[in-house]
Amino acid sequence: MKKPAWVIDKERARRAAAAETVWLFGLHAVRDALENPRRDRLRLICTKNAADKLAEAIAASGMTPEIADPRKFPAPLDPGSVHQGAALEVRPLAWGDLTELCTTGEGLPLVVLLDQVTDPHNAGAILRSAEVFGARAVIAPRHHSAPETGALAKTASGALERQPYLRVRNLADTMEELKRMGFVLLGLDGEGEATLAEGLAQAKGRPVGLVLGAEGPGLRERTRTTCDAIVRIPAAGPFGSLNVSNAAVVALYAARMAQD
Amino acid sequence: MKKPAWVIDKERARRAAAAETVWLFGLHAVRDALENPRRDRLRLICTKNAADKLAEAIAASGMTPEIADPRKFPAPLDPGSVHQGAALEVRPLAWGDLTELCTTGEGLPLVVLLDQVTDPHNAGAILRSAEVFGARAVIAPRHHSAPETGALAKTASGALERQPYLRVRNLADTMEELKRMGFVLLGLDGEGEATLAEGLAQAKGRPVGLVLGAEGPGLRERTRTTCDAIVRIPAAGPFGSLNVSNAAVVALYAARMAQD
Repeated sequence: MKKPAWVIDKERARRAAAAETVWLFGLHAVRDALENPRRDRLRLICTKNAADKLAEAIAASGMTPEIADPRKFPAPLDPGSVHQGAALEVRPLAWGDLTELCTTGEGLPLVVLLDQVTDPHNAGAILRSAEVFGARAVIAPRHHSAPETGALAKTASGALERQPYLRVRNLADTMEELKRMGFVLLGLDGEGEATLAEGLAQAKGRPVGLVLGAEGPGLRERTRTTCDAIVRIPAAGPFGSLNVSNAAVVALYAARMAQD
Repeated sequence: MKKPAWVIDKERARRAAAAETVWLFGLHAVRDALENPRRDRLRLICTKNAADKLAEAIAASGMTPEIADPRKFPAPLDPGSVHQGAALEVRPLAWGDLTELCTTGEGLPLVVLLDQVTDPHNAGAILRSAEVFGARAVIAPRHHSAPETGALAKTASGALERQPYLRVRNLADTMEELKRMGFVLLGLDGEGEATLAEGLAQAKGRPVGLVLGAEGPGLRERTRTTCDAIVRIPAAGPFGSLNVSNAAVVALYAARMAQD
């Protein structure tokens, strides 16, 4: 019997995901990944100098670095990547199941959902903030969002190794799933009728999901209508707006304060 | 009679400041500066294509652009600057007197002080957030802080034209001046004994200055001891920390909420 198309698609996606690797770079990001027991590591390229600086982490990882000439560093990085003589090929981390992530741990769960935030620096900064405020997960669609890259890892400043970053097939479906788990979903938008503080007061005592869109396009229509409420961060005047990572950190702080 | 050394120094600094110019770049930053009546503009270089896109702003400014070949764009920009075919030489904006800035306007004054934050992207993001939350000024020492550059203007996303950014001779002296004006100065540090919310509750009804240091070194000793209190943004766990622009936006939001 011929396999149905959706099975073939699914198998292909699984094979692609299994083959997918990421080059992390920079001393900080490489050290963090070497020290993370959950990381699946493939290949380490270092200059002599970087290998000395990373000696402890390399020993702990059990890897043998390929020593490279700093003038012709062979890792396939984007031009302009500040690698500091260290690059490590890894597989994306497997964070496991949404339900498990969102229901284990102390206190009221808090998650961040990113609707097509494609800029790795913004996504990296958000992972970093999410970790500080103890978010259970940062959730983004598998396509049209910032992949787990070296640039993201660098901005995340270690948080990529510790902060669950889940890439889901369909963001609105995941939002529905969170709602069934009891989450209140607050979409952030400068045009929101209620303020962030009002939205959080309404959600008091319940787990919260903060939903943010990319700068410019904002939340997509289905994302917006799937939220329980659209809230705004109150501005003092008519000019200016926060970038998405700044809006995210304000929302995370306010949510944490409201939940405590 | 011979001029005293400090007079000579002061005159030299004034001449240097008068000669100092900045190249802004990118369509957004150039358009904002062309439309700002307070901007002193010297030279505009555009590709034909960029000049068409900026036609309205160029007409309003009364400038005549020098049309350049996109393949050899002659503005003296850092390599890698995404200029989009537009560069404008300007003088830094003159924001006037600290006392006047801090005592005019509605509501309780709020200012941000940056202690040696040299990264232009961080300073730019903080200007942007400061504008959103209506801070009267962002204040930084003249030396060892991010100068008003094209990279800063781009990250500030228009805020550089509207948000006062004061460069002062000595940050601690300016802090003393603010204290005499009635400001409560809260220094941010992960090791602070009180929380940000506690510090702001203590400052209730008074103008507030939020003092932030660069990532890594943090606040310098004299800056720290000149603060009225050192406060921390509470973190959920032992790992991670906010970058300085994220800490600034959280503090600005919290201060605005506490002052209202």
